[in-house]
Amino acid sequence: MIADAIPPLDEDVRRQAAERQARLTKPAGSLGRLEDLSIRVAAMTGRLDPPLVHAVVFVMAADHGVVAEGVSAYPAAVTAQMVLNFARAGAAINVLAHVLGARVLVADVGVDADLPAQPGVRALKVRRGTANITRGPAMSVEEARQAIDTGRRLVREEAPAIAITGDMGIGNTTASAALICALTGLDPVAVVGRGTGVDDAGLERKRDAVRRALDVNREAIARGPQDALAAVGGLEIAALAGVILETARSRKPVIIDGFISGAAALVANAMEPRAAGYMIASHRSQELGHAEVLGRLGLQPLLDLDLRLGEGTGGVLALPLVRAAMRLLNDMATFEDAGVSGRVEGAP
Amino acid sequence: MIADAIPPLDEDVRRQAAERQARLTKPAGSLGRLEDLSIRVAAMTGRLDPPLVHAVVFVMAADHGVVAEGVSAYPAAVTAQMVLNFARAGAAINVLAHVLGARVLVADVGVDADLPAQPGVRALKVRRGTANITRGPAMSVEEARQAIDTGRRLVREEAPAIAITGDMGIGNTTASAALICALTGLDPVAVVGRGTGVDDAGLERKRDAVRRALDVNREAIARGPQDALAAVGGLEIAALAGVILETARSRKPVIIDGFISGAAALVANAMEPRAAGYMIASHRSQELGHAEVLGRLGLQPLLDLDLRLGEGTGGVLALPLVRAAMRLLNDMATFEDAGVSGRVEGAP
Repeated sequence: MIADAIPPLDEDVRRQAAERQARLTKPAGSLGRLEDLSIRVAAMTGRLDPPLVHAVVFVMAADHGVVAEGVSAYPAAVTAQMVLNFARAGAAINVLAHVLGARVLVADVGVDADLPAQPGVRALKVRRGTANITRGPAMSVEEARQAIDTGRRLVREEAPAIAITGDMGIGNTTASAALICALTGLDPVAVVGRGTGVDDAGLERKRDAVRRALDVNREAIARGPQDALAAVGGLEIAALAGVILETARSRKPVIIDGFISGAAALVANAMEPRAAGYMIASHRSQELGHAEVLGRLGLQPLLDLDLRLGEGTGGVLALPLVRAAMRLLNDMATFEDAGVSGRVEGAP
Repeated sequence: MIADAIPPLDEDVRRQAAERQARLTKPAGSLGRLEDLSIRVAAMTGRLDPPLVHAVVFVMAADHGVVAEGVSAYPAAVTAQMVLNFARAGAAINVLAHVLGARVLVADVGVDADLPAQPGVRALKVRRGTANITRGPAMSVEEARQAIDTGRRLVREEAPAIAITGDMGIGNTTASAALICALTGLDPVAVVGRGTGVDDAGLERKRDAVRRALDVNREAIARGPQDALAAVGGLEIAALAGVILETARSRKPVIIDGFISGAAALVANAMEPRAAGYMIASHRSQELGHAEVLGRLGLQPLLDLDLRLGEGTGGVLALPLVRAAMRLLNDMATFEDAGVSGRVEGAP
């Protein structure tokens, strides 16, 4: 456990970055949130100019037994179909990663189908989908641990300079909502949303499923975050928690995508409270409850584009902002270098 | 005037783009504002896949006589100093354009200094700064027309696939606020903000200067947008209006930066009401009154990063979103191609 501990942020480099920001040829604070972002990334990595070329989006895929409760607008078979779509580079995440400069790593950590072996998809199935959380635990604690370790291992193998979380799993907004409720005590009404687009009756079924899942699993939930994850979470959510924890352990930034990634981030931070220091919130998801999750992690999203796709799409869209923020910190001239006058003393 | 007319948007291509969005492998609407953005750009250009490589940020620089009223936290000399900083690629806009793939074109359309001839700065001075708008018109109507034509000419020469507006001019938030008030009838209290960072007394001086400018120039303002521009605007604002009008005329998208660019966009659209159809609002500036300008143009900003620098920085930061939106529209697989199931019929 000590080997896995997340180091504290580098306060010395944070100070250096803040001082440099103040000397760049622009009014103080005029680059807004990009200034703070650059200072945070410097503190995470311990470097004013960390390399950010090797960006990897970890798209973890798994199925959910809770789909039997009629909580999704799409059939469960879509999870496997979309994994094949990822492998053929036809999905939104492939297109965005290509144009914005990230590598897509897809892993089957729990798809409920025998996927053909293929380049571009790592076969790391922990089990074939979770059990139905309205009837008992999603998985065993050992399986949850195994899925977390899978995520950790992928980060160690890839050694990304910056990681991005992504997900695929029909039914996973229901599992994520249940997990968020379990970890925060929030009422399902404040957390459960329409996911990929259920109607009013579907939304009521989702809320009801989450309520029953919280009720039937209440003892496990009370035991702590890892047990709650096993009880009402998902295999891809567990793997993403591992991705987040290992990226933070390696002192690299991790861009958190949307609602499902937010649930994984909440678990990761509950397990190791330093984790949030290494997180960058990419966007405010349309999914209900997401803003609450970010607030609890102390994160403010960079984008607000009404996205609700997952896959890591919001995360990758934030990547150019992170890279741009670091280039501004490092490549702009200072007032002194450029011979530009500063503010008029005392006025106005 | 007919040669300069802006053509209507291509409704046929708009329909084709919307139909294609509905067939891509994602829940309908899940890419949020990027879907609408891609459809709009297709309608502007008349193409589902317009080339967007040649992006140019037009940084128009000029000085403002109103700085004599103590409306800026920085001395007027900073305009000329920053133009040299642009030429040496030391400013924020240079760094962002480099990392995000745009060319920076800087033009002196009215800097109140004899700038040394240098590569990277076009010498197109219409006059040395505007007159003090609290005492009379900023410039003659002929000078305003000349500045507009300068912006138009630069776009014709550069022939960008996508244009971005940028500005440099100490005092130009005051001129922009006056122009916005002149064109909208809004009260200065709702429009005048802190610019690069004036204190409370400075803010009051700015409001007062705008009030006096509107009063002394009220007859010219009543004559229409071009006269209002000459009366209380600025040379870089006029040039940017030209950039916007000519880009729209050539059926290319133009990304509008922040507050100053917003004032130019408002003038352009008042002169030719089809102009707004070709505009993309990049970000919500911290400057008071900016949201009101965007609302009147029917635009919703893509980013909200608390920026208040100008130079085109917000505009260039939105460029990867525009390019990504078009790649999503064109490169994603359709449900049919990828063998991915659609929504379950009728449920849930």
